[in-house]
Amino acid sequence: MTLPERQLANAIRALAMDAVQAANSGHPGMPMGMADVATVLYSDYLKFDPTDPKWADRDRFVLSAGHGSMLAYATLHLAGYARPTIDDIRNFRQLHSPCAGHPENFELDGVETTTGPLGQGLATAVGMAIAERHLNALYGDDLVDHRTWVVAGDGCLMEGINHEAIGLAGHLQLGRMTVLWDDNKITIDGSTELSTSEDIAARYAATGWHVENCDGHDPADIRRAIDAALADPRPSLIACRTIIGFGAPNKQGTSATHGAPLGADEIAAARKELGWTAEPFVIPADIASTWAAFGEKGKSLHSEWNNRLANSEKKKEFTDRLSGKIIPGDTFKAYLDGLVAEPPKVATRKASENTLGALTADISALVGGSADLTGSNNTKTSSTKPLTKDDYSGRYIYYGIREFGMAAAMNGMALHGGVVPYGGTFLVFADYCRAAIRLSALQQQRVVYVMTHDSIGLGEDGPTHQPIEHLQSLRAMPNLLVLRPADAVETAECWALALAQESRPSLLALTRQNLPPLRHDVTENLCLKGGYRLRAASAARKVVLVATGSEVSLAIDIADKLEAAGHGADVVSMVSTALFDEQSGAYQADMLPSDVLTVSIEAGTTFGWERYTGRDGLRFGIDSFGASAPIDDLYAHFGLTVDAITPKILAKLGN
Amino acid sequence: MTLPERQLANAIRALAMDAVQAANSGHPGMPMGMADVATVLYSDYLKFDPTDPKWADRDRFVLSAGHGSMLAYATLHLAGYARPTIDDIRNFRQLHSPCAGHPENFELDGVETTTGPLGQGLATAVGMAIAERHLNALYGDDLVDHRTWVVAGDGCLMEGINHEAIGLAGHLQLGRMTVLWDDNKITIDGSTELSTSEDIAARYAATGWHVENCDGHDPADIRRAIDAALADPRPSLIACRTIIGFGAPNKQGTSATHGAPLGADEIAAARKELGWTAEPFVIPADIASTWAAFGEKGKSLHSEWNNRLANSEKKKEFTDRLSGKIIPGDTFKAYLDGLVAEPPKVATRKASENTLGALTADISALVGGSADLTGSNNTKTSSTKPLTKDDYSGRYIYYGIREFGMAAAMNGMALHGGVVPYGGTFLVFADYCRAAIRLSALQQQRVVYVMTHDSIGLGEDGPTHQPIEHLQSLRAMPNLLVLRPADAVETAECWALALAQESRPSLLALTRQNLPPLRHDVTENLCLKGGYRLRAASAARKVVLVATGSEVSLAIDIADKLEAAGHGADVVSMVSTALFDEQSGAYQADMLPSDVLTVSIEAGTTFGWERYTGRDGLRFGIDSFGASAPIDDLYAHFGLTVDAITPKILAKLGN
Repeated sequence: MTLPERQLANAIRALAMDAVQAANSGHPGMPMGMADVATVLYSDYLKFDPTDPKWADRDRFVLSAGHGSMLAYATLHLAGYARPTIDDIRNFRQLHSPCAGHPENFELDGVETTTGPLGQGLATAVGMAIAERHLNALYGDDLVDHRTWVVAGDGCLMEGINHEAIGLAGHLQLGRMTVLWDDNKITIDGSTELSTSEDIAARYAATGWHVENCDGHDPADIRRAIDAALADPRPSLIACRTIIGFGAPNKQGTSATHGAPLGADEIAAARKELGWTAEPFVIPADIASTWAAFGEKGKSLHSEWNNRLANSEKKKEFTDRLSGKIIPGDTFKAYLDGLVAEPPKVATRKASENTLGALTADISALVGGSADLTGSNNTKTSSTKPLTKDDYSGRYIYYGIREFGMAAAMNGMALHGGVVPYGGTFLVFADYCRAAIRLSALQQQRVVYVMTHDSIGLGEDGPTHQPIEHLQSLRAMPNLLVLRPADAVETAECWALALAQESRPSLLALTRQNLPPLRHDVTENLCLKGGYRLRAASAARKVVLVATGSEVSLAIDIADKLEAAGHGADVVSMVSTALFDEQSGAYQADMLPSDVLTVSIEAGTTFGWERYTGRDGLRFGIDSFGASAPIDDLYAHFGLTVDAITPKILAKLGN
Repeated sequence: MTLPERQLANAIRALAMDAVQAANSGHPGMPMGMADVATVLYSDYLKFDPTDPKWADRDRFVLSAGHGSMLAYATLHLAGYARPTIDDIRNFRQLHSPCAGHPENFELDGVETTTGPLGQGLATAVGMAIAERHLNALYGDDLVDHRTWVVAGDGCLMEGINHEAIGLAGHLQLGRMTVLWDDNKITIDGSTELSTSEDIAARYAATGWHVENCDGHDPADIRRAIDAALADPRPSLIACRTIIGFGAPNKQGTSATHGAPLGADEIAAARKELGWTAEPFVIPADIASTWAAFGEKGKSLHSEWNNRLANSEKKKEFTDRLSGKIIPGDTFKAYLDGLVAEPPKVATRKASENTLGALTADISALVGGSADLTGSNNTKTSSTKPLTKDDYSGRYIYYGIREFGMAAAMNGMALHGGVVPYGGTFLVFADYCRAAIRLSALQQQRVVYVMTHDSIGLGEDGPTHQPIEHLQSLRAMPNLLVLRPADAVETAECWALALAQESRPSLLALTRQNLPPLRHDVTENLCLKGGYRLRAASAARKVVLVATGSEVSLAIDIADKLEAAGHGADVVSMVSTALFDEQSGAYQADMLPSDVLTVSIEAGTTFGWERYTGRDGLRFGIDSFGASAPIDDLYAHFGLTVDAITPKILAKLGN
């Protein structure tokens, strides 16, 4: 390399300063501080082919400190990716620019995961590293042999999810994961001394990690530290001592550079300080060509990999696997037929286990797990042996009591590709991992959340464990498919729907308690439309009862009573409001005609059910916290029984 | 003490076994494992007066591993608290029993905090320990001089919030906090080796904690460890090596004892093993009297404390402070008057800062903070100097990037009493602390969440930072007051409302962007009713526009257009749906008459607005994720402008 590396790094600094200034918004401090580290990483370590950002065996680079997005955009641009162009960077933070405020995988190839919510990038990277080792165990070094790199800041390391993520990575000895910590001792509020006193290196070491330190502005020292990390079998943390906003002579080392433009004067001073004479958004040719050369090694490696793949016996299997197309097979079909032959009275969590038994036999890409509730979430099957540090070929992960870490890891696996992850916890603990569920949805990833104990129906564990607002609050989240099946057939249909979603996550809400079989046909996936008429009125229709999950059988019993009183009552099983809302107006009006009384029944908040009942309909649910008691006592206490509901409907009908 | 301590502990074991068996549900393993530790704690260390569970200077005991609730119920009963009675324990996990599945502060005095959601008890205890040191700094050892004890399990220590909590406690050197870790090496899924490999002692040490180990079944060793903890100025973790389900000869040491009744045979065998001959729910007299004597020391200490309080110059101030009654005073009134005199065009986050300037001057109990967004959340005032390890009298906490830890600590402060906590983060990061917000609501605690950047109005930071579903998903939570003010006057009114709530938390959703003044009167708190007619129609009323926060001024502009077209339009500012829903039907019908078109406008999901608009109304909002762009571009992109909305309303009106 003939150019001083500092000059190569200054290209990142200049682009970061200029783009933030042009947008009049953004975070220059981190890119300027970590520019030297990023330059070393791209020049000598990161395996990438800028002409194919989706190459399966590329290294994964995760900017966990996502506010420093200009670090990602600058390096991708300099390294020769088709996007972002310099015009994209000029349009940093403008509508329709792929250079969004925070890096977004769905806006720009080369961005491996959407970051910004702190800590989650690192935790997502753990899932990528798991997926890499798992596929390596199946397909060998010839096809799968890459690393996962993370740039993380103090915020990422202070967030609780960081503890869960590194605990999991340390336990699984994910030695091909390296975290480059931007150790700049500055957070938004000021010095890290304001809020933390921990010895981060010692904490990581205690969690099974290898730890190195380096001067983050000394390329030789950065290389030494990375080489040491690569040589160690454990996951590695490298504390890169940096100066935030490096190069801005009056503001560097302070929180003033963190999240605001430097201003024209300081940028001019920084250009002088850095010896950067080029105009804004101009990269001198020698620097551009040196950066562009970084990608050549990766192109060559990619070419060699292509040859190995072409000659591999496993080529078709591997390619199919990575394509993400999965289709339930014969075992699943046989399972469905069995449900018709012998309709079981089971909890939907048990029905889910049975379904998974078939699906995991059919689909080797399914990798399951639970946040220490395996026997309660019913997530383990005979096909899924444990994935451990000694056997990465396993397909079941004991995530420990780490709901948030589990969810983020699942995002990472899905983003990595080749793995379709599902994982379980209690529905109420969706609150513990909600921020990761949101990133599943935003990132358009097929992750399946198996959330059991989905109402007061769980009984004695009481209000801390009983979801009330959870179903509706999750339905409010964009691009998340919430599915609440009513029996074993619907559970199987919901699983098929969840796996068919290639660009959104699903959440199955499943009961602890047994439910009677309601469906006796499997010729068509009726759940596909979200809500469907499970039973049509016999007498002239006066009421449509809309219910979900465990309350569908209750609705049917109520319908019996209403029919007996001469009032025809449809029962609509509303498995998924999201899917129902996607149907045509005609279909919706057919299911929920506006000229009859519409009644919703769900053992959760009534908030939001007005969408289907209107203001004039009736809504039965629970608008307070739950209570600790046996299930039947609770349903009676909260008025969710045939005897409590039927008279109210009759009264509304004028009887 | 004449009885073997093992026998005293066996009383806990017997009650736990028998109550779980009677309920046919519950968790015997932990109470049986930690019985010896609990017995030592109650006999020699815990400061409590069973005749006054609310004594201000009592030690706080937090059962973070809340599933082991029978440990709490057994010890409270044995130690002589009025409740639970033995009949309460017989009714463990039954409807209306104070002995709920998990300990609930609102069901039973002596339960300091509701636990069960793992990790949060420990994190809540941090807040209690902060409150203790803060009040100690103000009122001295004579009045405030107590400790905070936590029993935590492996689950608590694996949860991410544990990292945030101990980081905060270590940083603030909360030396009067002791965590007794039930180190039994078992989780629900089996051995801890399935999911974790960390050196917990080393991790705590790295975070500024003192660590001890002891044999959790050897009273002398437990005492040695506790004594060492008390002698150390740092917060302490004591790893109590225990056998889960101790005494159940065939099941102890396995996850089989964790969360299910032992069964009649195993209970009989355990009685034999433990030498426990009493019938179920019977405590032999000598054991009962020995346990009852544990409380005598505390009664005596309480009596001495009463004398000191009676003679204290600060008696009235202290008593008022602990009563929880707070009333905004003259500074706040002057601030309100100033708003009328000079209505400011400010962001509501800035209006909140200005309001807080007055309130923190008036009310010394207010203790604020932010999860590293002080300058963005506008949470610091001149009255609130930092609370640090060197000065606990401070009133502002730099919580660091620990949203969940902050929220749980605020719960602990509120539960402790004498402190009214508020804390800030971005609204989108409510997802990071949602599980603690839920516990604020469930525990009926006055905690104020200051959540800024409450919509796409934050602009360029993009979809990871823009709340969409958050307002509605939080409104769906029982007992949480979500408040979204539209200008500076409403912001002040909302703060007054939040502080007036003695049994529920509030969440203020505040803008990043400036908003025009809309209100010019402060004689009556109009926000009190949740929604009110900010402007009445001039022409004959055809439309009611219902809007919140930053969209209220938009609604007024739209109303102008509608009026210009001859259609009378009311504008209702819906500051709080929760408060509005509590109003009389007549009031609601007056605000939202059913005979005109109702239109909702909020820069978030439209989900749930049907409650007010009906199915026939119009709802303007955002039902997808946001985007990264300047604010005006975003409002235009998502169709939330006068020009985009007005024609749709006119079309609906048939024009």
